[in-house]
Amino acid sequence: MSSLIRFGISLDKTLLESFDVLISDRGYTNRSEALRDLIRDELVRKEWLSGDIVAGTITLVYDHHTRELNARLTDIQHNHHNVIIATQHIHLDHHNCLEVIVVQGTPQDIEKLAARLKATRGVKHSALTMATTGKNLL
Amino acid sequence: MSSLIRFGISLDKTLLESFDVLISDRGYTNRSEALRDLIRDELVRKEWLSGDIVAGTITLVYDHHTRELNARLTDIQHNHHNVIIATQHIHLDHHNCLEVIVVQGTPQDIEKLAARLKATRGVKHSALTMATTGKNLL
Amino acid sequence: MSSLIRFGISLDKTLLESFDVLISDRGYTNRSEALRDLIRDELVRKEWLSGDIVAGTITLVYDHHTRELNARLTDIQHNHHNVIIATQHIHLDHHNCLEVIVVQGTPQDIEKLAARLKATRGVKHSALTMATTGKNLL
Amino acid sequence: MSSLIRFGISLDKTLLESFDVLISDRGYTNRSEALRDLIRDELVRKEWLSGDIVAGTITLVYDHHTRELNARLTDIQHNHHNVIIATQHIHLDHHNCLEVIVVQGTPQDIEKLAARLKATRGVKHSALTMATTGKNLL
Repeated sequence: MSSLIRFGISLDKTLLESFDVLISDRGYTNRSEALRDLIRDELVRKEWLSGDIVAGTITLVYDHHTRELNARLTDIQHNHHNVIIATQHIHLDHHNCLEVIVVQGTPQDIEKLAARLKATRGVKHSALTMATTGKNLL
Repeated sequence: MSSLIRFGISLDKTLLESFDVLISDRGYTNRSEALRDLIRDELVRKEWLSGDIVAGTITLVYDHHTRELNARLTDIQHNHHNVIIATQHIHLDHHNCLEVIVVQGTPQDIEKLAARLKATRGVKHSALTMATTGKNLL
Repeated sequence: MSSLIRFGISLDKTLLESFDVLISDRGYTNRSEALRDLIRDELVRKEWLSGDIVAGTITLVYDHHTRELNARLTDIQHNHHNVIIATQHIHLDHHNCLEVIVVQGTPQDIEKLAARLKATRGVKHSALTMATTGKNLL
Repeated sequence: MSSLIRFGISLDKTLLESFDVLISDRGYTNRSEALRDLIRDELVRKEWLSGDIVAGTITLVYDHHTRELNARLTDIQHNHHNVIIATQHIHLDHHNCLEVIVVQGTPQDIEKLAARLKATRGVKHSALTMATTGKNLL
């Protein structure tokens, strides 16, 4: 666990007022937490660019009635089991499933898996979300 | 279930060759599926802009040792239970958790919940992923 | 002209160290300027969402040999002259032109013009860049 | 100049109907041009990732009254003159200028210049727009 450091920043008055309105709209109760979030978002982007081990999620929407789609998606996931931590399956309606795959590994390995799943016929939508292992983001 | 329609498109030869390389790199086995994915991505973006009922995921990374953070996050989720379908919790390491919340509702309601969770002190990273209910994306 | 306000924020030591590396890589000489930039980027995004008068640029790349393309692009620009401030034309090579159109107006009007230009046959690439009039961003 | 190739793609009827509405809203008069634009956007993204020579624009908004800002921005631009093709300067109002710098070079060189300009004190907003030289995008 590391320690808090306090330092001062200077901001133009009208810029600060606009910022205070913005963060209050978003539910922040203090400026430090809002600024920490802006900083962390930049650092997570950097983790993905620099090839560090990252975490993320892959979200799929598909119609489970598509012939052999379930089997194909399961096959792909097993071929990439080393980057997959867990999968959650939601039944949106009679036809549509949403599946969230939590992943951890290098950005390249994760992006390759996401591309394979997206390219699978019958997958209606697929999105890769960049997150972090949190290790370097105290 | 609706029917397939086949139509022709014309593409410059060199543009088509570049496209074929691109989609082969991404694991597509035919052009139709690759073009369908580009089209669906545009339609999902439109669903979120036009305020239709959409699905999505909110990914959080946080240190579960942060005092009362678990309780606060659970409170917020219960206050928005009408848009939350399910939550999955992953133990990344001794300190860090990754939580994926699957949501369904209007973009406004979902964005409000995502903002509240992101603004919560102790949440290191938070990302909202736009997906779809799949209803209009055959 | 408005006045500078100085206030304190607290950051975890390791988070601050990562941030200092990040901003030094980007050429910042002090934390205040880096944080001001993060804040202003959020405010510009908000200006575009809330429908305020904004500024921006539309970048086009096209082959000026395409039959009647120049005339069509000029026609479209004249039909939207109220949002166009100026246009700069670059000859990239014998075939390719890059044109930058500086625009000011409501986000809706600007997005409509950008869509029209992008949809014009022969335009190879088109991008809309969100900027600001700077009026509320001291 | 290369030749046009025509090929067929198959789309679900309701997906095609949604796509036709979308592209008609955006001012397209035929599906081929709309699909070509989706394809080209992907190819431009790939050019920037793979380090090819690309073109782009850097948009700056700043207050020209800021002490020595003009001189500093000119210095930085001259230090990177090898990637800068041309600069256009717009007087938005008494205080605010918008400057568009058209650039051509490797993505790394362009991103470095954009970072330097953004980090300069007094620059209120800065955005890098990815475009293309058009050479490989017939």
